[in-house]
Amino acid sequence: MSDLFPERGGVPAAASDRAWLQGMLDAESALARARGIEGADAIAAVCVAERFDLVSLGMASQESGNPVVPLAKALREVSGVDEAHRGATSQDILDTATMLVVRRALEPLLGDFDAASVAAARLASEHRSTPMPARTLLQQALPTTFGLVAGQWLTALDGAAAALRALELPAQLGGPAGTLVGLGPEVAARFAAELGLAEPVLPWHTDRRPVAAVAGALGAAAGVVAKVARDVTLLSQTEVGEVREAAPGGSSAMPHKRNPVAAITALGAARQAPGLVSTLLASMEQEHQRAAGGWHAEWRPLRELLIACGTAAAWLRACLEGLQVDAERMRANLELGVPAEERGGEALARHVAAAETLVDRALSPRRP
Amino acid sequence: MSDLFPERGGVPAAASDRAWLQGMLDAESALARARGIEGADAIAAVCVAERFDLVSLGMASQESGNPVVPLAKALREVSGVDEAHRGATSQDILDTATMLVVRRALEPLLGDFDAASVAAARLASEHRSTPMPARTLLQQALPTTFGLVAGQWLTALDGAAAALRALELPAQLGGPAGTLVGLGPEVAARFAAELGLAEPVLPWHTDRRPVAAVAGALGAAAGVVAKVARDVTLLSQTEVGEVREAAPGGSSAMPHKRNPVAAITALGAARQAPGLVSTLLASMEQEHQRAAGGWHAEWRPLRELLIACGTAAAWLRACLEGLQVDAERMRANLELGVPAEERGGEALARHVAAAETLVDRALSPRRP
Amino acid sequence: MSDLFPERGGVPAAASDRAWLQGMLDAESALARARGIEGADAIAAVCVAERFDLVSLGMASQESGNPVVPLAKALREVSGVDEAHRGATSQDILDTATMLVVRRALEPLLGDFDAASVAAARLASEHRSTPMPARTLLQQALPTTFGLVAGQWLTALDGAAAALRALELPAQLGGPAGTLVGLGPEVAARFAAELGLAEPVLPWHTDRRPVAAVAGALGAAAGVVAKVARDVTLLSQTEVGEVREAAPGGSSAMPHKRNPVAAITALGAARQAPGLVSTLLASMEQEHQRAAGGWHAEWRPLRELLIACGTAAAWLRACLEGLQVDAERMRANLELGVPAEERGGEALARHVAAAETLVDRALSPRRP
Amino acid sequence: MSDLFPERGGVPAAASDRAWLQGMLDAESALARARGIEGADAIAAVCVAERFDLVSLGMASQESGNPVVPLAKALREVSGVDEAHRGATSQDILDTATMLVVRRALEPLLGDFDAASVAAARLASEHRSTPMPARTLLQQALPTTFGLVAGQWLTALDGAAAALRALELPAQLGGPAGTLVGLGPEVAARFAAELGLAEPVLPWHTDRRPVAAVAGALGAAAGVVAKVARDVTLLSQTEVGEVREAAPGGSSAMPHKRNPVAAITALGAARQAPGLVSTLLASMEQEHQRAAGGWHAEWRPLRELLIACGTAAAWLRACLEGLQVDAERMRANLELGVPAEERGGEALARHVAAAETLVDRALSPRRP
Repeated sequence: MSDLFPERGGVPAAASDRAWLQGMLDAESALARARGIEGADAIAAVCVAERFDLVSLGMASQESGNPVVPLAKALREVSGVDEAHRGATSQDILDTATMLVVRRALEPLLGDFDAASVAAARLASEHRSTPMPARTLLQQALPTTFGLVAGQWLTALDGAAAALRALELPAQLGGPAGTLVGLGPEVAARFAAELGLAEPVLPWHTDRRPVAAVAGALGAAAGVVAKVARDVTLLSQTEVGEVREAAPGGSSAMPHKRNPVAAITALGAARQAPGLVSTLLASMEQEHQRAAGGWHAEWRPLRELLIACGTAAAWLRACLEGLQVDAERMRANLELGVPAEERGGEALARHVAAAETLVDRALSPRRP
Repeated sequence: MSDLFPERGGVPAAASDRAWLQGMLDAESALARARGIEGADAIAAVCVAERFDLVSLGMASQESGNPVVPLAKALREVSGVDEAHRGATSQDILDTATMLVVRRALEPLLGDFDAASVAAARLASEHRSTPMPARTLLQQALPTTFGLVAGQWLTALDGAAAALRALELPAQLGGPAGTLVGLGPEVAARFAAELGLAEPVLPWHTDRRPVAAVAGALGAAAGVVAKVARDVTLLSQTEVGEVREAAPGGSSAMPHKRNPVAAITALGAARQAPGLVSTLLASMEQEHQRAAGGWHAEWRPLRELLIACGTAAAWLRACLEGLQVDAERMRANLELGVPAEERGGEALARHVAAAETLVDRALSPRRP
Repeated sequence: MSDLFPERGGVPAAASDRAWLQGMLDAESALARARGIEGADAIAAVCVAERFDLVSLGMASQESGNPVVPLAKALREVSGVDEAHRGATSQDILDTATMLVVRRALEPLLGDFDAASVAAARLASEHRSTPMPARTLLQQALPTTFGLVAGQWLTALDGAAAALRALELPAQLGGPAGTLVGLGPEVAARFAAELGLAEPVLPWHTDRRPVAAVAGALGAAAGVVAKVARDVTLLSQTEVGEVREAAPGGSSAMPHKRNPVAAITALGAARQAPGLVSTLLASMEQEHQRAAGGWHAEWRPLRELLIACGTAAAWLRACLEGLQVDAERMRANLELGVPAEERGGEALARHVAAAETLVDRALSPRRP
Repeated sequence: MSDLFPERGGVPAAASDRAWLQGMLDAESALARARGIEGADAIAAVCVAERFDLVSLGMASQESGNPVVPLAKALREVSGVDEAHRGATSQDILDTATMLVVRRALEPLLGDFDAASVAAARLASEHRSTPMPARTLLQQALPTTFGLVAGQWLTALDGAAAALRALELPAQLGGPAGTLVGLGPEVAARFAAELGLAEPVLPWHTDRRPVAAVAGALGAAAGVVAKVARDVTLLSQTEVGEVREAAPGGSSAMPHKRNPVAAITALGAARQAPGLVSTLLASMEQEHQRAAGGWHAEWRPLRELLIACGTAAAWLRACLEGLQVDAERMRANLELGVPAEERGGEALARHVAAAETLVDRALSPRRP
């Protein structure tokens, strides 16, 4: 977490140390309920992150290698229930907390994706017929419309969000050896149900497909943000000038600058995703019933990935919601590189009509 | 492609230069049919990779930056149909070929996954009740059964294969500016149908979610292979000795060695995936209507990723199909680290019974 | 930064938001001195991180896309010197701060590397002649000595540290267009000298070799830590039992466990490096005279990389400083897999003597 | 290796299967000489790649997991010298071959870097005083000269090449257990000297710093190529038009296009590097005395990395050697975004003079 280096939107708070602690407490509470133990209510009553001291938990976690060992101890003390945590292993609690954090962090993240989509849809609709040069390999090619450009942004944003919504986030419960000994599948099923998470076929302590799926979907979502943000930076170039952010950044040294700060910061955040995804995929190689390093290697990259995507989405939303379009400049730019026989009259009309048909397809899922 | 450095199974041939060329020709042929042009049959008749010279196409492609420009020229010459390729842009043909190659390469890859699953299921069933130490953080913990170990392999392998089968592989058709000008959505629909590919909402020239989805699913599949192969190498250790490959490798210098070559080579292949996936995700940032570099950066990594996963799966299949299990050693190893009160009598029976319940869950989708 | 997820040693504090802020202030102060402006002393007097509010700087940075714009404004207000920051561009200050932070963070990091080396040297010396099985492909091969194992750790640790020490960390000064207009090379030279940083041939706003060099050296250092930590986890296995950490971690569920927590946590930290390095290398593609995204993409990964390496080194130090070696078990394990004709008598003596020769080479740079 | 997907320059041949085979044979021959065995000349006489069958070696390598086992057998048969390969382990031969391949592949790669540098120096010299807009965050800022732009390319290219030239490439010799038993350090020293490779302190079977160093230097070199190529694609944009490649690519569908194919293909190749570097860094975690997977994971990525960098450099050379500069357009573009008070008269002269000073610094190492 950082004050200085870009974080924006609701994800950073939803993926904070405190949020992870709350996730662990929610898992402990759900476990007590799923097991039907006497002290379940007493446990539930104290499972509030504010009642525990993050810093001392963090320091104590250095002895056991993860924060659940000291947390379970603290929970027994605070609740007075010795049965707390019984039957579970540290990874049950931390993995379940991770899935809860992912679910909770996806809410603001998807909120920003959706808002960016709404903005893209508005741009697609308003500029359905606004001609501009299509550019391939950074060279002007033939006419398209800005509506279709925005329609492609919309389709990609909606698709990435749908893939995130389709993620199945499973609870984790297996006990020390992953056999569910002393608990059994029924407890595991109730545990998942308590938390609104999916019930896996087996414990997934060292079958990290759930983490890989989250990583893959976030990585693709970041790629979509990067594509749109890249387009905005290119269309904003001094020599192109077809779009402009509502609040371009100035420069202490050059007050005339109109930097597309939102798009640039979105891009800077989104580009952090591929490396983080690779770390999470490489971490799938986990030994036996609990990994010696591979599991531990997931924690920070997954959080950084959530924050990177969330920040990217929040900036892209800001960028698109305020995007100003210069339709005259678009038309004027056609003169610079599109052949004369394609940029006017019937030929232009044909290109525009083709683009309009596709804009309508892009917008159709949003029509009543 | 390499003779010296590990390639195995059917993927390398299915993802060869020749296979990609055939994919491009299939795309050209389908385009002619979808457009309903007069020369469609003449085009179809010559769209066979053997009729074209890969090396000279490769050399000519250096002028235009991709192999489709010279291929379209050669196709017109060979078929005598000037209309060939009309309306399409290079990327339409190459992206469609890529999706065809992916689909075709997934066949042998999934064949090897399925065979590995069958072998894992057999191991799970045969050793449903064979006790062994569960190991967490590379330390012996409590008893499990080898059936559950193999059952977890099975679940992961099946899940990874299911994710690969669920991929929607879209055709690509958009024309030079991505507007489908001169073609229209109907031609695009027929084009996709001809090839048995999905019809996308819009052309996806610079919306690379389809490539990212393939990359993500292959990356996760490689991770699953790595997990299983890692377990085999660890269980094969001299000091553990619980499993042994059917054809362990010797050593020129040390004839007594029993190297688990299949698992090791599978691991070496699988570990190439995360970096390649990151390249493909980073390549999603593509400019305007066709990328200047990002598209070109996809070609080799996608092929390497297919070959890496295919090779890994083929080696894992060999590994698991011949895996020999030493149940006595497993039981004997329990003495080394599992507490006495957990490794015998009723306690052991409880652990085994818990594991059996989960083995049955893992095997249940395979029951009649 | 995280309380819950592994951070250890002096790097996290040396790479905190506050440390970066201090680096920026040091750069501003050095600039004033290098320019020889009247208010240089007044500026120097206030360039203390505690005098500025991180949170409000962070919030204000969202308008301009980086924290230097509001910092320069605040500095002018606090110091009362309007000339402050004149001639520089934001990137001059932030890049210079980054190099200062790297230099400062390398101090505790190298301290931990050196301490780990000292521990490895002690192990190499003490166990120069302690026979144990060399293991290739996780199978026992022929005898070696634990002294040589530790000697190889030592050589690798020292080499990685030497590469980090050899890094040339340049100051950054170029002004808004990278021409040094209004400043000139003499000011740039004085600026670098003030800070004890190297003077580059040209401003490196978009020539990111300095960042890539730091990334490469940290990535290699992390790889060395991972190798050593991996060996410790394998040698600590229940079935191998040749080494044991001084303070192995327990488990809430399994009090008999002796988890090599230090090695595992080191490994978990070190494995985060490759993905972060790839992000930094991918960020070298920076446009024109200042990047639109690529620069911004560096900040967090570079910090995470420093923290990952620093944490890994601190844990490895703890691991090696307390490592307990079971020489009897090593000798006993030779019986398990090394051929009888190689593990005793003259043959064993020959293997041990060969290893001793190499141990002496490894230790020789440390001899008086 | 691929005919269809970009390969250019001398690296692909220097890093082919055949080249690796020759490297292994050179290592075997040097080993025989270093050991001073009777059959050394007979071995040397047959150590020519053409005398061995790559395909059958490749197939036989599947039994042992690497190609050296069957190669050593074939070498004994072909040479009639039973002593061949004695004392070495497979990894000695393959790692040494790898270092030889790297050294040989660096020759054409550095040839292309040097030629690109010469072209950049010519551009820097010719356009020392050609004003153009500096662009920050893709917005016009203040004036610079194209000479300085090219001078920065030059500095970065030369620096990356110098880092590649500074690589120490060590021979590998350790024998089966890495103790040099039966060989001793003197043989290892002669072995390295025979091949002109560096002599390492210890065998580096599982201390992969040499591979990491190669990876890091190639990764940085690729990043430099990407930066230059990116600039060329941006300066070539229709709306900017300040440079143009000598042989821009056409388009089947749009004959008016002037695609900067060389820069784009260079970029597409260079962008493959970061992911491959991350795989090589992640592979540093190698077990005990020889890795079970990590070593095997290096082979293909290292080759791909060499080919990617070599191809990128060869294309960049072509790009820069033929680059046409439109000095009038540069001056005209200043009007679009640089403030009037900065783009003319004395102000412009001041900016140009500042840039000239830096151009001279960049060119000075090349002055007599």
